[in-house]
Amino acid sequence: MECYLDNSATTRTADEVVKIMIEAMQVNYGNPSSKHMKGVDGEKYVKEAASIIAKSLKVLDKEILFTSGGTESNNTAIIGTAMANKRKGNHLIVSSVEHASVKEPFNFLEREGFRVTYLPVNSEGIVDLEALKDALDDETILVSCMHVNNEIGAVEPIEEIGRIVKKYNPDIIYHVDAIQSYGKYKIYPKKIGIDLLSVSGHKIHGPKGSGFLFIKDKTRIKPIIYGGGQQKGMRSGTENVPAIAGLGKAVELIYNEHFDEKINHLYEIKDSLIDGLTKIADVKINSKKGDLSAPQIVSASFKNVRAEVLLHALEEKEIYVSSGSACSSNKPGLSNTLVAIGLPNDLLDSTIRFSFNYGTSKEEIDYTLEVLNTLVPQLRRFIRK
Amino acid sequence: MECYLDNSATTRTADEVVKIMIEAMQVNYGNPSSKHMKGVDGEKYVKEAASIIAKSLKVLDKEILFTSGGTESNNTAIIGTAMANKRKGNHLIVSSVEHASVKEPFNFLEREGFRVTYLPVNSEGIVDLEALKDALDDETILVSCMHVNNEIGAVEPIEEIGRIVKKYNPDIIYHVDAIQSYGKYKIYPKKIGIDLLSVSGHKIHGPKGSGFLFIKDKTRIKPIIYGGGQQKGMRSGTENVPAIAGLGKAVELIYNEHFDEKINHLYEIKDSLIDGLTKIADVKINSKKGDLSAPQIVSASFKNVRAEVLLHALEEKEIYVSSGSACSSNKPGLSNTLVAIGLPNDLLDSTIRFSFNYGTSKEEIDYTLEVLNTLVPQLRRFIRK
Repeated sequence: MECYLDNSATTRTADEVVKIMIEAMQVNYGNPSSKHMKGVDGEKYVKEAASIIAKSLKVLDKEILFTSGGTESNNTAIIGTAMANKRKGNHLIVSSVEHASVKEPFNFLEREGFRVTYLPVNSEGIVDLEALKDALDDETILVSCMHVNNEIGAVEPIEEIGRIVKKYNPDIIYHVDAIQSYGKYKIYPKKIGIDLLSVSGHKIHGPKGSGFLFIKDKTRIKPIIYGGGQQKGMRSGTENVPAIAGLGKAVELIYNEHFDEKINHLYEIKDSLIDGLTKIADVKINSKKGDLSAPQIVSASFKNVRAEVLLHALEEKEIYVSSGSACSSNKPGLSNTLVAIGLPNDLLDSTIRFSFNYGTSKEEIDYTLEVLNTLVPQLRRFIRK
Repeated sequence: MECYLDNSATTRTADEVVKIMIEAMQVNYGNPSSKHMKGVDGEKYVKEAASIIAKSLKVLDKEILFTSGGTESNNTAIIGTAMANKRKGNHLIVSSVEHASVKEPFNFLEREGFRVTYLPVNSEGIVDLEALKDALDDETILVSCMHVNNEIGAVEPIEEIGRIVKKYNPDIIYHVDAIQSYGKYKIYPKKIGIDLLSVSGHKIHGPKGSGFLFIKDKTRIKPIIYGGGQQKGMRSGTENVPAIAGLGKAVELIYNEHFDEKINHLYEIKDSLIDGLTKIADVKINSKKGDLSAPQIVSASFKNVRAEVLLHALEEKEIYVSSGSACSSNKPGLSNTLVAIGLPNDLLDSTIRFSFNYGTSKEEIDYTLEVLNTLVPQLRRFIRK
């Protein structure tokens, strides 16, 4: 039985997404900038996708900016607002457990002369709100915090952060990286003071190379890519119509009348995996049951087992998981959530992330647990020799 | 008969390109950063595409950087080298007939304090080499020139420019925007001193949202997007595997044993359209016959006919063309090639671009000429009323 449990790294593109992409690649393939009918046909996909996405967030169609993915969304949000508001202040605030696509733009801005405060988290990975209150000052122009942590599934208090930031100064721009949460939660940015929200398509069965940034109307922000002035000048380059159409379709498929059902299924799957893992000796679960952490992510540390060895042993049984965060495998040192929550050194390299999609079955979880129950003791014997 | 003659705006994605994309979206959909087999499968597409592209340019696989398209390639080339070399000098040189995705990054750098020299062109759109020689100085760090002009098909002397620049100072970085020429010409950057070469996928029957930048080994350049460190840190973000695979396939389809045949066909098509247009009264052809201009572009100005009116009249006959350059239709004022070549004011707004693909047939050209022969006099009568 093939068990793809690495859906937080990337997902299989949905059939209906592929279908609309093919249509946009081969039938209505015009450039939206072209003035003839084929251009207008291309533009329709873009408008339709913006409308579907805006509806899911209860925002305006014109507040959706299409990007080449989550990394570009985060870069645009962070670098774009810092550059546009540097005359107002040069202080930025961000959590210390962000994905590299948030952390690295902040590091870049620090090199450019901005002052950055990195907020600590507790042992569950939750941002310290008192530290946020202490950090805010007259120079603060941007606060950024992820919604769901990509490594352990911790859910950050984005509503409270919004309240604190906007109460301190409504002009401070508030960015939320929702790459691991959009599609799993109903998020209404305007209800909680979010000015910028980043989303990636390929984490939600949409196309790789697709994503969007919600930009609240009138937010001061500059583009990071210049050219033909597409998307009101905020993102030049021919719109990636097939990917945008596919992203819209993926969102439509998720936020339909079965949404709650799908999410409840994910919680059930998660809890059953956590229950099963708890029964294996010397396993530390870094995620919480129920709605205390995200429905699709379970991080677990297997004492005396090297994560990479376990990953490949599972692979032989057609179970695909991640060691730490796949997105940062190019720079293993960057995965700092596990360090930030104070995971003991001997467990840092023994941590596996299991991540589900809506279709992950109870049978897959049972099979995975069965395999783990056999493998983990075997690997421990092997290592102790 | 449908005649899509707007291939310089965008092309229909080839069947084989779509096929490999579907495979990468639904079968081997892993994230190249994942350490398991599905990740390795994803990475294979990226390596294979890099190898195909590198071969077409006679460069190394590792010198190919995948981007989200031509605009990102140009932005990375220009902003990335300016930022990486600003301690060496702050002078940049570029032609005055560039596409907006080159021109706007230079405008951005000018606002950031760089000094930019814009080289004039002659009445055929060809860059003035004496002006280049005069402009080069001790502070020059970057020279950028397009290969084929997107509006009229003029072919810039990129070899001579390379010789002049590298003779003056081999450390000056030389960038060529080959977005309209790659796929129509055999280009060997290392033979002519090119350090950076930009290409877009959707102009050559590859996917929208795909492109690459050739970066000669050891070129000093910084990324413009930060994050997980993919592509050796030069372009963070999960690799768009399906688009990259599709781009590789598109290149393979073009640079095969039938390459010369396909290009000769384009020249024949072009010359027959130019011959036909010459027979219509008061038409100024802004492109040259034969290899004096690009094989796939014909720009023509129809005196006393408004381009947009003609475009829509042609559309009714299923002929799709562009007025000026489609890529800049969002900012019509940007199309400055026609101004730079000294086109009389009354013709600026009367100019149509016809652009072909390898499959454009003689019949389509004959049909287009037939329609124009009827339409143009009709529209002129209408306008004179």
